[in-house]
Amino acid sequence: MALPTVPLGRYHRRMTAAVKLRPSQSALDGAVAELRLLLGERLSTGLAQREQHGRGEAYHETAAPDAVAWPQSTAEVGEIVRICARHAVPMVPFGAGTSLEGHVAALQGGVSIDLTRMNRILAVRPADLDATVEPGVTRKQLNAQVKDSGLFFAVDPGADATLGGMAATRASGTNAVRYGTMRENVLALGVVLADGSLIRTGGRARKSAAGYDLTRLFVGSEGTLGIIVEATVRLHGLPEAVSAAVASFPSVEAAVETVILTIQSGIPVARIELLDPVQMMAINRHAKFDYAEQPTLFFEFHGSEAGVVEQVERVKAIAADFGAGDFRWATRAEDRSRLWQARHDAYYAALALRPGAKAWATDVCVPISRLAECIAATVADIRAETLLAPIVGHVGDGNFHVTFILDPNDKQERAAAERVNEGMVARALAMDGTCTGEHGIGAGKLDNLIAEHGEGVEVMRRIKATLDPLNLMNPGKIFRA
Amino acid sequence: MALPTVPLGRYHRRMTAAVKLRPSQSALDGAVAELRLLLGERLSTGLAQREQHGRGEAYHETAAPDAVAWPQSTAEVGEIVRICARHAVPMVPFGAGTSLEGHVAALQGGVSIDLTRMNRILAVRPADLDATVEPGVTRKQLNAQVKDSGLFFAVDPGADATLGGMAATRASGTNAVRYGTMRENVLALGVVLADGSLIRTGGRARKSAAGYDLTRLFVGSEGTLGIIVEATVRLHGLPEAVSAAVASFPSVEAAVETVILTIQSGIPVARIELLDPVQMMAINRHAKFDYAEQPTLFFEFHGSEAGVVEQVERVKAIAADFGAGDFRWATRAEDRSRLWQARHDAYYAALALRPGAKAWATDVCVPISRLAECIAATVADIRAETLLAPIVGHVGDGNFHVTFILDPNDKQERAAAERVNEGMVARALAMDGTCTGEHGIGAGKLDNLIAEHGEGVEVMRRIKATLDPLNLMNPGKIFRA
Repeated sequence: MALPTVPLGRYHRRMTAAVKLRPSQSALDGAVAELRLLLGERLSTGLAQREQHGRGEAYHETAAPDAVAWPQSTAEVGEIVRICARHAVPMVPFGAGTSLEGHVAALQGGVSIDLTRMNRILAVRPADLDATVEPGVTRKQLNAQVKDSGLFFAVDPGADATLGGMAATRASGTNAVRYGTMRENVLALGVVLADGSLIRTGGRARKSAAGYDLTRLFVGSEGTLGIIVEATVRLHGLPEAVSAAVASFPSVEAAVETVILTIQSGIPVARIELLDPVQMMAINRHAKFDYAEQPTLFFEFHGSEAGVVEQVERVKAIAADFGAGDFRWATRAEDRSRLWQARHDAYYAALALRPGAKAWATDVCVPISRLAECIAATVADIRAETLLAPIVGHVGDGNFHVTFILDPNDKQERAAAERVNEGMVARALAMDGTCTGEHGIGAGKLDNLIAEHGEGVEVMRRIKATLDPLNLMNPGKIFRA
Repeated sequence: MALPTVPLGRYHRRMTAAVKLRPSQSALDGAVAELRLLLGERLSTGLAQREQHGRGEAYHETAAPDAVAWPQSTAEVGEIVRICARHAVPMVPFGAGTSLEGHVAALQGGVSIDLTRMNRILAVRPADLDATVEPGVTRKQLNAQVKDSGLFFAVDPGADATLGGMAATRASGTNAVRYGTMRENVLALGVVLADGSLIRTGGRARKSAAGYDLTRLFVGSEGTLGIIVEATVRLHGLPEAVSAAVASFPSVEAAVETVILTIQSGIPVARIELLDPVQMMAINRHAKFDYAEQPTLFFEFHGSEAGVVEQVERVKAIAADFGAGDFRWATRAEDRSRLWQARHDAYYAALALRPGAKAWATDVCVPISRLAECIAATVADIRAETLLAPIVGHVGDGNFHVTFILDPNDKQERAAAERVNEGMVARALAMDGTCTGEHGIGAGKLDNLIAEHGEGVEVMRRIKATLDPLNLMNPGKIFRA
């Protein structure tokens, strides 16, 4: 008996064939009328709100939704999804709007579901080092709440993003090298699926071998499989001692070699960030620092008093071998805050270098042994194209960012930046890296995903098709619609 | 060609419906003929091989496959899968056969795909702290290979399991508390899907935000979504200093409170294992130790020389507060090996307590604040049922195991053990824990999975159905067929 196997492409073809790219006006009108009954003034079709919700911080094409909804409970999210599904109207979840790859653009219209009014911290459990929050809680809000318990939430992408959005985009940031990304820091999620039903992806056990890892499936799914309505996240004890430092190096290679040897030596550094000379110039101007405008590493060390001293001594010895200038220390909490605020403001500092310009931030991540080579080749490309594009990196993970500072009216500049980006992605993939370490695919890296995952993208498409058969959950993101 | 089948026993009575889904004799004959052409003597239909491959280490009833195949390459695995799919013959991947929940039983017959001849270490990259292996490489084999580079592979379930099997079951073990489980230690997989095609789930970057997390989807999928043919895993630097110790406590509660405070204090202990008095008696007899037969913790500390001293001092102070007896140290490598071998042999030591008995090992995992309560209630149930059932636990994760030592001919004993197990699982779920921390669902915890995940199991089923529409990949595991 010969049974035909199911070809991998069939589901995708069926899915795209079934979907009209935008809902009809009558479908929209029907959905909006029902949503207004449900939400009253918490539904808006005003242009300003719609435009703001279609934009995010991305350089990419913006696309305003047809309406914006502000649910206040999981039950309301479920009802919104059921209404939109009945009318075949797309849904785009929205948190703080800080995503960088066009995740919130309503490419096929529909309803933006703004989760910022679901911002209650439902439980903090110091004994278990975890907390459960609604999706609109921001990381700073959670940290303010748990500080008095001697705890902190470790994932720090810079922006004060919502935890729902951070889970949806698999966010990470400066201290992922020590504490992991959202992949490691989410214990469980509540998710409203495309039919309006609610699942919880797990409990609070630190590990589980019970079935498929639904938590990790939804972390990083960018709103394309369901809407995150609850997150249980890990907390960490505030370290007994913290010390931060800045050191400049004669070359990017020397700085990166310092990073590589630090990681290979197993030193549990909490943050290790690279900033290139262009970025250092931007920070000096923006935040009135007077750092050397050279390749620079920002460090942070966490541990016991003795442990931090030991880490610092070992890193200083490594850095000295690669020609580091003197370490400048920030041991007082307010000095560290100022230092890391400067790092977090790198994007805005870069933007300020060129008034009227727009910033396009892109990132890749490579095995650490290839990092110096990957950055050097990218810098060479930026110079060859005569672009303004500072580089910063979470280099302990092999992850770095290029922020192109572009004249929005200059198509040639944009084309040059695209060439640099495509070259960088191709280089990262050739090095067994990834097309994005933390920004995600969104609407910006659809082809890069295919280059990276090949037939794996068909597996992703099949999962998408079976969980969202009408392709209404953030359509056009991760996969081309 | 008529292939006799091994009858299914009482434990899988509920699966008799599934048995009817066995392939027809003509389908089997066709598949076996094609497989023999492909593999020659690397295909067996001999009873001894079939029985061995249907058994594993599970207490659960065995179910022999109709044939056993030994591929030597990914291409051969792909061809085997295509042949089996064409004939609608089930496939069951097989590694070291050390799984504990009946994962390798061929409940619907079919072909056991034994991956132990795919045991090449394809690459070790000390600079990136990773290695790529074929699925039949065992953890001890990999560790022997990387030791000279100053590295080790951290996940240690005790048994010398294959890395393919460990990935498929989301294995963990004694030092997951410090280094994570297979979830955290697998960077990427090569997987042959149900249609025989090959995907790679990722590259070697330490983090990625590129699409759905296919690596984590296949880790723990127990062979139900595809066959793992390659794994890229993280390695860690061998610690500069290692110290191990054994301490006994006046009660299980005192031992567990020591664990809780150690974890809450953020002390990066590498292993922290609980053994109850029954297990200590078993170990003393089995390995000729003379430990106190009291609740006992086995510790291991990794770090710099100074760091280990600091960890030890802090843990000793905590343990003293909970009435610990003197710490017995094992600082020499051979003493540590003997100590951990005794811990790893706990299962066999327990079995040896009662000649002729069989062991049924089960595990749960709970938030650490509930661990003492969960163990105490379980011990009370074991006593009330007058069962012999030592307890050991990876307690730093909130994970513990009960090993029932049962007379295989005593149905009442079996029923009593099932009552204790069901009570323990229900208790763990009520505590927001999981029905299995590391053994998996297999064929043994199908109903527990539904109790734990509810509608989430429907999401898992849909993923299974879309990736394996003919339900040929290890059918009857995770989901009832």
